[in-house]
Formats: sequence, C-alpha cells, structure tokens
Amino acid sequence: MKKILNSADTVVTEFLTGFAAAHPDTHRVDLDHHLILRADAGQIDKVGIVSGGGSGHEPLHGGYVGPGMLDAACCGEVFTSPVPDQILAATEAVDAGKGVLHIVKNYTGDVMNFEMAAEMIEGTRVETVVVADDVAVQDSLYTTGRRGVGGTVFVEKIAGAVAEKGASLDEVTAVATDVSARVRSFGVALTSCTVPAAGKPTFDLDEGHMELGIGIHGEPGRERVPIASAHDLAAQLARPILDDADFTSDPVIVMVNGMGATPLLELYLLYGEVARYLEDHGVTIARCKVGNYITSLDMAGASLTMAPVTDELLAAWDAPSPVFH
Amino acid sequence: MKKILNSADTVVTEFLTGFAAAHPDTHRVDLDHHLILRADAGQIDKVGIVSGGGSGHEPLHGGYVGPGMLDAACCGEVFTSPVPDQILAATEAVDAGKGVLHIVKNYTGDVMNFEMAAEMIEGTRVETVVVADDVAVQDSLYTTGRRGVGGTVFVEKIAGAVAEKGASLDEVTAVATDVSARVRSFGVALTSCTVPAAGKPTFDLDEGHMELGIGIHGEPGRERVPIASAHDLAAQLARPILDDADFTSDPVIVMVNGMGATPLLELYLLYGEVARYLEDHGVTIARCKVGNYITSLDMAGASLTMAPVTDELLAAWDAPSPVFH
Repeated sequence: MKKILNSADTVVTEFLTGFAAAHPDTHRVDLDHHLILRADAGQIDKVGIVSGGGSGHEPLHGGYVGPGMLDAACCGEVFTSPVPDQILAATEAVDAGKGVLHIVKNYTGDVMNFEMAAEMIEGTRVETVVVADDVAVQDSLYTTGRRGVGGTVFVEKIAGAVAEKGASLDEVTAVATDVSARVRSFGVALTSCTVPAAGKPTFDLDEGHMELGIGIHGEPGRERVPIASAHDLAAQLARPILDDADFTSDPVIVMVNGMGATPLLELYLLYGEVARYLEDHGVTIARCKVGNYITSLDMAGASLTMAPVTDELLAAWDAPSPVFH
Repeated sequence: MKKILNSADTVVTEFLTGFAAAHPDTHRVDLDHHLILRADAGQIDKVGIVSGGGSGHEPLHGGYVGPGMLDAACCGEVFTSPVPDQILAATEAVDAGKGVLHIVKNYTGDVMNFEMAAEMIEGTRVETVVVADDVAVQDSLYTTGRRGVGGTVFVEKIAGAVAEKGASLDEVTAVATDVSARVRSFGVALTSCTVPAAGKPTFDLDEGHMELGIGIHGEPGRERVPIASAHDLAAQLARPILDDADFTSDPVIVMVNGMGATPLLELYLLYGEVARYLEDHGVTIARCKVGNYITSLDMAGASLTMAPVTDELLAAWDAPSPVFH
C-alpha cells in the first residue's frame, strides 16, 4: 500500500486536523464528532443542510461545506457510515430555527444512522432526502435499491443554493426530492481502490479489463469487459442512463467525474466523447462539469451523472458558491 | 496501461476537443495550434500572458486560462515542449497592444521554443520569465539549472492578477520575476506515471519505497528511501526548501499539491503535518492551497511549494479568479 498517512486508524482524524489548519477562517472542525461545519453554521437565518457518509470520496462531502451548499458534513471512517451521535451533533449545530435537511446517499448504514439521529433530536424539525441515482444495479453490497453516487453532488448544490436564498424547509426538501428523482449516474473502474485499513486493493482487475457499473466503494458492477476506447466507453456509460429515463425533453446538466486517479486530460477527452454521444441521441447539454467531484480514494475510472432540469433548477445550479467549481 | 483514450497519438487533440465542448462560452480552443485561449483574448486592454508546456500536468496550464490568470496556454504533446509556431500563434492572439509576457517552466526545450517564438514575432513586445523553483536537483534530465514545477502556479496567479488590474508589461514582468525568485518546491513520488505513448510506467519503484525530489515528468530525484510516515514525509519535503532560502521573515503562501493519483484525504492529512512542521520552524503561513494544481498524469505523490510574500503579492494572490480555487 502506497499512501501518505501515519496510521490507518487515524486517517480521518488527521485529515480533519489538516482541513482545520487549511481553512481556519471559513470552516469549523469538530474533532470530537468528526464534523466539518461552516464557520457561521447555526448563526444564519436559513434552513440547515447536513450531509455525510464514509470518508474517501473527497471533495464530497466536507469540500462542499460552505455558502450555497452544505452547513455541515459528517465524516465517517473510510467507506464507513457516520454514527448517529455525529449526525445528531451536526444537526444541532446547524439548526438556526428553520429546520434541517439531511441529504443521505442510499446505503443501508447511512440511511439507518441518519434516521436514528433524526429520531433522537428534540426541538428541531428534520427532513430527509435519500439519493439513489446509480442505474447500474438494483441492489448492491451495502444497499437495498439503487446506490447514491454522483447525483448527491447535484442535490447538494441545488438544494444548497435554494436554502441560501432563504427558502423554507418544505421548499428546500421539495427541490432536493425533485433533483433526486431526476438524476442518474453510471460508473466505470479501471483499477481498484485501496482502503487504508485493508492495505491491499479491494478487488482484482486484470490489465486488460474494466468493470462497468462499479460502486464508489468498489462494489461489484454489472460486468467486466475488455478496456474499451474512450469513444466506446462514452456509449457504455451513457446508454444505461438514457435507457432509464427521458433526457430529451428538458436541457440536461452533465458531470464527467473522476474516481480519484484518472488525470484531467483523460476526463476531458471522455467528456468530448460523451458530449458527442449525447448530442447524437437528442440530449441538449445545458451545463457540464468535468473533474473530481465524488471519488473513490485512488481508484482509476470515471462516472457520468446527468439530470434534466427546469429553468429554476438551472438557476440554482448556476448560483455561485465558493466551494463548488 | 489502463487509460481512457482512443489512441496515444490523439490524446492532446481529443483533450482539447473535450475542453472546447465543456467551456464554449468562456474559452476558445485553437485545434490547429493546440491552444486554449480566453474567449476575449486580445480584445481586452491588458498585457497578455501566455504559458504552456507539455500536456499531462492539468489543470496547469489550460485550466488556468481565464480572467485573472492566463490569456492563452500552449499545449504540447504529453510531456513534450510546445513548438515555436504554437507559441507564436498564442502570442499574436493575446496581444492587445500592451505587450505579452511568456511564463516558461525551466526545461531546455520549453525555454528554447519560447525564445524562438519571441524572436519570430513582429510588432509585439515580449518579455519572458523562466520559473526554476525545484530545489531537489541542480541539473536534471531535461534541464540545465533547476526545474520549473509548482512555483509556476504562483507566478501565473500573481502575475495574472496584476495584469488583469491594468499594469504595464514592465510591471507585470517585474512581479513575475519577483515571485519566481521567491518560490521554492520539492516533490515526492510514491508511484510512477505512465505516459500514453510509452504504454508502461516511466520508472520502477518497489512497494516499500518512494522517490524524494522527483520531477513532474518522473525525472530522477535526490534519493529513493523507504516510504515514510506522513509526519516524517512533511519534514522530508519542507527541510530542503527551508534550507534553500529564508522563510521566517515574511508571511508565506504554502501549496500542498497532488501529483494526480493521491486522494484529497491524504493531501489534507499531509498539509496538517506540513503546517505543524513549518510553525515549529518559525514560518508564518499566510495562505494555503491543498489539491491538484500541477500533476504528473497518474503519478501518486505530492509536492510542497512555498513563497514568502509582501502585502502586495498577497493581495494579488487573493484577487478572485474564476479559474483558480
């Protein structure tokens, strides 16, 4: 295992220590509960937004804490759900009297622990939106139903912008639910990631093969196939998404996301192929993002996320946030 | 080789095709000359700034084309200098009558080709600043003198901000020269990168070792040593920089940069260790950046870049740019 760390046991604590040192003016880090919070969390007249999950997907979620996105992120151990106490502490910290939205990726542990925290809290209204955008598999290793992957970025960005403008909890929840219903993703791995505590790759994938429909923790996808050209890969990623919902009626936001170890050079190259494929299939691309937005430690690979949007959703997507580029 | 591409021969052209598709409103891509330009390049009353070099270091340089940084980037083939014709075309395209600054990383081919382009151009005043910030080795595989690495990001950001505010070519050149004189870097590789045209790792580095003082093309560094803890690595990166210049008199901008395949989790963890080491050694950190700013394809590893700054330089660093975060 070739990683920059001191001990596998302290990776998340030390990540948070570094994050706190890097962003002392804009963020507050709660090392007891492993939370990243906006410096002004709980002190602004807005709905609070809390997300979180296992660490190892950065910038998601901690990197999205800031004006126009999240008020707090609960950082679980690597690829491990945050515990209810963390989520409770985050929810209490961000509540400014207008209630709190939990944005939860659909993994059994995450959903259960966010639910428990919502039940434990007193005096704060909590709503929950579960993101389940991965069209690759119906049930998975850690999931009943579809997994929550890149679509979470879309929900956090758009709900965050709406909350920042002063919308009520009902309004923010409705928007987050709407985005969650619209968004779809599909991913591919060229290599496995290596979890620090395991010390070796999560799975084997030989030199000539890639895994289509991979999960962000290296959960099995749909199939292993020979490594394709970028041209063919674009179709392999886009086709299952287009098969799953209508992307030709409204303009679409598209994200080509790197899994961690794939150079920007390749991600842009892939985006060029994806854009061509989508245009050939009647999709109008309104906006796009190309980069590392939700990663899987040091996995090589990419994912495609798409959501057809209304003018209102697009305006929320476009609203500037210092933590989303 | 596990990469997302169609053919090693067309990687840069197809990267540029994808980049053009992704940023149609803000950028112009010249596919004949392999240039990324600001959409309004040459049409704004400012000194033009051109940089460039081999591709494979993204976001440097193409990702830094935009208001407050570069007017154009010349994209060479992967790890290959751009040719004089490209640089000439870029320089002509960005000249709005106030002259053009070339920011050049110190590699023999880059320096020679930028020089040739500057000699070929007629009717445009061109100044050149060569960045040579890598303290690891005196001469290297492709370099006489020190290599230009992460310090280039500092020069591009600060000179770009000063040019955007309307400074003259002499003033922009003086600031770029000043930053270039102040900035120092040192890097480490945990794994080799793989150049698409080669199809295999540039060098071998066994499971237990890392290479200190690595170049951004995988050029040999100072020494191979057993993989250290993040705590010890911070000292191994910072010590040679502190040994090379005075970092205790002025506040310092610090960048912990990922080489491409190192997760943000590890980069922040390393930053925490670096910040502690620097504070223990009398360094006052004024600003920091943690992320992937100048990469080496899919290399795992990191680099540390530091520059002591005046209030004026810090203000230019802080000036907002939509392409630098």
